[in-house]
Amino acid sequence: MASAVTPRNEDYSQWYLDIVKNANLASNSAVRGCMVIKPYGFGIWERMQRQLDDMFKETGHQNAYFPLFIPKSFLSKEAAHVEGFAKECAVVTHYRLMNAPDGSGVIVDPEAKLEEELIVRPTSETIIWNTYRDWVTSYRDLPLLINQWANVVRWEMRTRLFLRTAEFLWQEGHTAHATAEEAQAETLQMQEVYATFAEEYMAMPVIRGYKTENERFAGADNTYTIEALMQDGKALQAGTSHNLGQNFAKAFDVKFANKDNQEEYVYATSWGVSTRLIGGLIMTHSDDEGLVLPPRLAPIQVVIIPIPKPNEALDAKAAELLAAFKARGVRVSYDSDDTKRPGFKFAENELKGIPVRLGLGSRDLENGTIEVARRDNKTKESQPLEGIVDHVVSLLDDIQNNLFQRALDFRTAHTHHVDTFEEFEAILNRDIPGFIYAHWDGTTETELKIKEMTKATIRCIPNDAPEEAGKCILTGKPSHRRVIFAKAY
Amino acid sequence: MASAVTPRNEDYSQWYLDIVKNANLASNSAVRGCMVIKPYGFGIWERMQRQLDDMFKETGHQNAYFPLFIPKSFLSKEAAHVEGFAKECAVVTHYRLMNAPDGSGVIVDPEAKLEEELIVRPTSETIIWNTYRDWVTSYRDLPLLINQWANVVRWEMRTRLFLRTAEFLWQEGHTAHATAEEAQAETLQMQEVYATFAEEYMAMPVIRGYKTENERFAGADNTYTIEALMQDGKALQAGTSHNLGQNFAKAFDVKFANKDNQEEYVYATSWGVSTRLIGGLIMTHSDDEGLVLPPRLAPIQVVIIPIPKPNEALDAKAAELLAAFKARGVRVSYDSDDTKRPGFKFAENELKGIPVRLGLGSRDLENGTIEVARRDNKTKESQPLEGIVDHVVSLLDDIQNNLFQRALDFRTAHTHHVDTFEEFEAILNRDIPGFIYAHWDGTTETELKIKEMTKATIRCIPNDAPEEAGKCILTGKPSHRRVIFAKAY
Ligand SMILES: [Zn+2]
Ligand SMILES: [Zn+2]
Repeated sequence: MASAVTPRNEDYSQWYLDIVKNANLASNSAVRGCMVIKPYGFGIWERMQRQLDDMFKETGHQNAYFPLFIPKSFLSKEAAHVEGFAKECAVVTHYRLMNAPDGSGVIVDPEAKLEEELIVRPTSETIIWNTYRDWVTSYRDLPLLINQWANVVRWEMRTRLFLRTAEFLWQEGHTAHATAEEAQAETLQMQEVYATFAEEYMAMPVIRGYKTENERFAGADNTYTIEALMQDGKALQAGTSHNLGQNFAKAFDVKFANKDNQEEYVYATSWGVSTRLIGGLIMTHSDDEGLVLPPRLAPIQVVIIPIPKPNEALDAKAAELLAAFKARGVRVSYDSDDTKRPGFKFAENELKGIPVRLGLGSRDLENGTIEVARRDNKTKESQPLEGIVDHVVSLLDDIQNNLFQRALDFRTAHTHHVDTFEEFEAILNRDIPGFIYAHWDGTTETELKIKEMTKATIRCIPNDAPEEAGKCILTGKPSHRRVIFAKAY
Repeated sequence: MASAVTPRNEDYSQWYLDIVKNANLASNSAVRGCMVIKPYGFGIWERMQRQLDDMFKETGHQNAYFPLFIPKSFLSKEAAHVEGFAKECAVVTHYRLMNAPDGSGVIVDPEAKLEEELIVRPTSETIIWNTYRDWVTSYRDLPLLINQWANVVRWEMRTRLFLRTAEFLWQEGHTAHATAEEAQAETLQMQEVYATFAEEYMAMPVIRGYKTENERFAGADNTYTIEALMQDGKALQAGTSHNLGQNFAKAFDVKFANKDNQEEYVYATSWGVSTRLIGGLIMTHSDDEGLVLPPRLAPIQVVIIPIPKPNEALDAKAAELLAAFKARGVRVSYDSDDTKRPGFKFAENELKGIPVRLGLGSRDLENGTIEVARRDNKTKESQPLEGIVDHVVSLLDDIQNNLFQRALDFRTAHTHHVDTFEEFEAILNRDIPGFIYAHWDGTTETELKIKEMTKATIRCIPNDAPEEAGKCILTGKPSHRRVIFAKAY
């Protein structure tokens, strides 16, 4: 079982796929690029959803649902948007099948051709702003603070489970505001909600920044991002929040009467995170033994294993512990399968990333002790059974904090400031390149040239980047702040 | 506002649409047959989801997610299934758009044609059983108890918000078992979960029964159903649970080694309820003033209205009440909008179906009283402010029970036993026809003839239908139990 994971330093991509497969998180399906999210993987997504949903509601948002299909012509209404999304999308052209005349199965009924093709949503700005036109007439109707949990489809050519799939699950917030200031405040608020979620729940430190013009969402005036660093030294864009200005309001003619009774276009934001987060979670914490999960998102936080195998006394004690843990809100399970030996179960539970393992033996019962093993640093200790629930509850917090600190230390160790292109290339050629703070002259031309030469992209300009005079690492032209480069997923 | 609802006895269909529209539940979209579920309507769906999901988990099920798309050839693998679902489905034929050479917008890129067309799932048996083949090898892998929350598409020609839409939201359970007995027990268990949910949460009484061969799910050996009666005397199929036997296992070659190490095909069930339930909820309880919601599913259970308008003393008392209600888990809001008069707010809150309205006036404050109005029977009473939270909490239970009892009484009053075809037709010709228990000779031929003559279908054979000798109302042939006929949605 555990030995089925390829070590990271041998083949990082295979390590990732081994974990996804062997921890039973997801698998490929019969449909190219579409994944099956298995119950254990979906359990992680459910915890993410529940927490994010609570945070969205605390910030005043409500959920709604908009159609899966978008009329083809809608995509063309916002000029930048169509360039960004029309390339790779699933197109519905017919609405009926029929039996093949030769009896070979079913074929598309040529008579059932749609007048206008429908696109399976790659993102919903267009259909939603077409709807908002009917919902907004006055400033009293604003703000509209709406979120949708949905599936979307982007026809990616190279896919990887969770990280890049043709269909994925996500949430997309779409808000409408009376002023540019409110839209900007909303955009930043949702970036901060994402950052808080990433750091406090995923234990994944992120940099809050904004994208260069070249990397912006198609149709946005500004795209804010949270960027995380994976263990192979590549960046992962973990969530984005876009200030859409009046672009979609103009494209879909959404106006409102302001307090002075004058007509104005509405200001918009949109923001989203997806099942890609699960990929980020895996790559932030896991090790060569398998998945490592932060306690706050782990479907099972504690597993109790009878040693060497279940018996009446151990079962009774375990039942007592299960009840005590559940009363404290801890997600706990008892592995009473008597066809597997403890060593096998240990490896299996490590593979699944269960944060705390309790080994309960007959001798322990006599001594009033229990063995407590942490998944994060793989230490073990014997603890008194008395007070074990309190001990484990506080241990879960320690593990959550340790995972965050470990990831932060990793990021710190792999964050570099360079002032020459030679240093820049040298860092990028390392096994684990990381984040590079460097000066850039602010032009898309230079950005693209650097990308072409090194595969590194500008991940973001940090929200809090200090003013600092310098020279672009490629062109030597003046720059007044550093931006962050990295290779990225 | 409230006057915008057409009375039921004037035009029932329009009454329904008026409520959906004016209570802000849903609207049609730019895509034919696809609806937008607005925040208030989605709030009801969220409560349904949360409760059903808890019930599924209590009965041992886990959630997972399977692809939106199904390869066309999969539909043909189960002979009955393809007949049932191939007719009306959205077909993806291409995966890319391109700019039109004449600059007129985007067109489908003819070079990006899929080798095999993809169907947008109308239901997921085929893609899921194709996956289960990889998941099941031994009896130790069984049962598989899996549920999915998803959107599905059926290209309906005549649509009505919530009741019949091209895209709808639902859950679909798909389980795999080692024996026919277990599959049958699961099928009945999930029918009972649905019935419990309908009766205890929706306050909608249902008949538990099973379908005739003609009305079965395409690919099922047996389809169990819960059937509710709407206020216009038509039946609504509110949820179904299918025993699929070994049909899908054979179609997708899913076998397991049993305890005797012999290969057998796996036994299957599937079961689902959808956003159609919201249509049933509306039509069970609402009246000519608007929506009526059972407290357990109401997004807002109690609204407090300051009379005649907000002031400091009323706001302070309301804040205190809000906190006290929230502490008891009551979903409460304070309508402090001072641009609308109380009468307008009363009508608005009636339209939205908020179960309890509290009118808080300055004189009340002096007297230590508050006006309590019930939405269900529109009675009002003055109550002491002291202990008001306890009073309202228990009132919410009363309302929940009253709505159920009222719906049950309505059903009882509109349930008939007939023994001749003349009586049968006479009942069906009434304004509110209802359920008709009658004898039927058991043939599809007779069933279809009755449907053609009267538009009534056999809704179900009740699970607990007693043996009773009789003669078919149409053919006079012998029958040994009554079945339930009705006109239906
Ligand atoms: Zn430095
Ligand atoms: Zn009778």
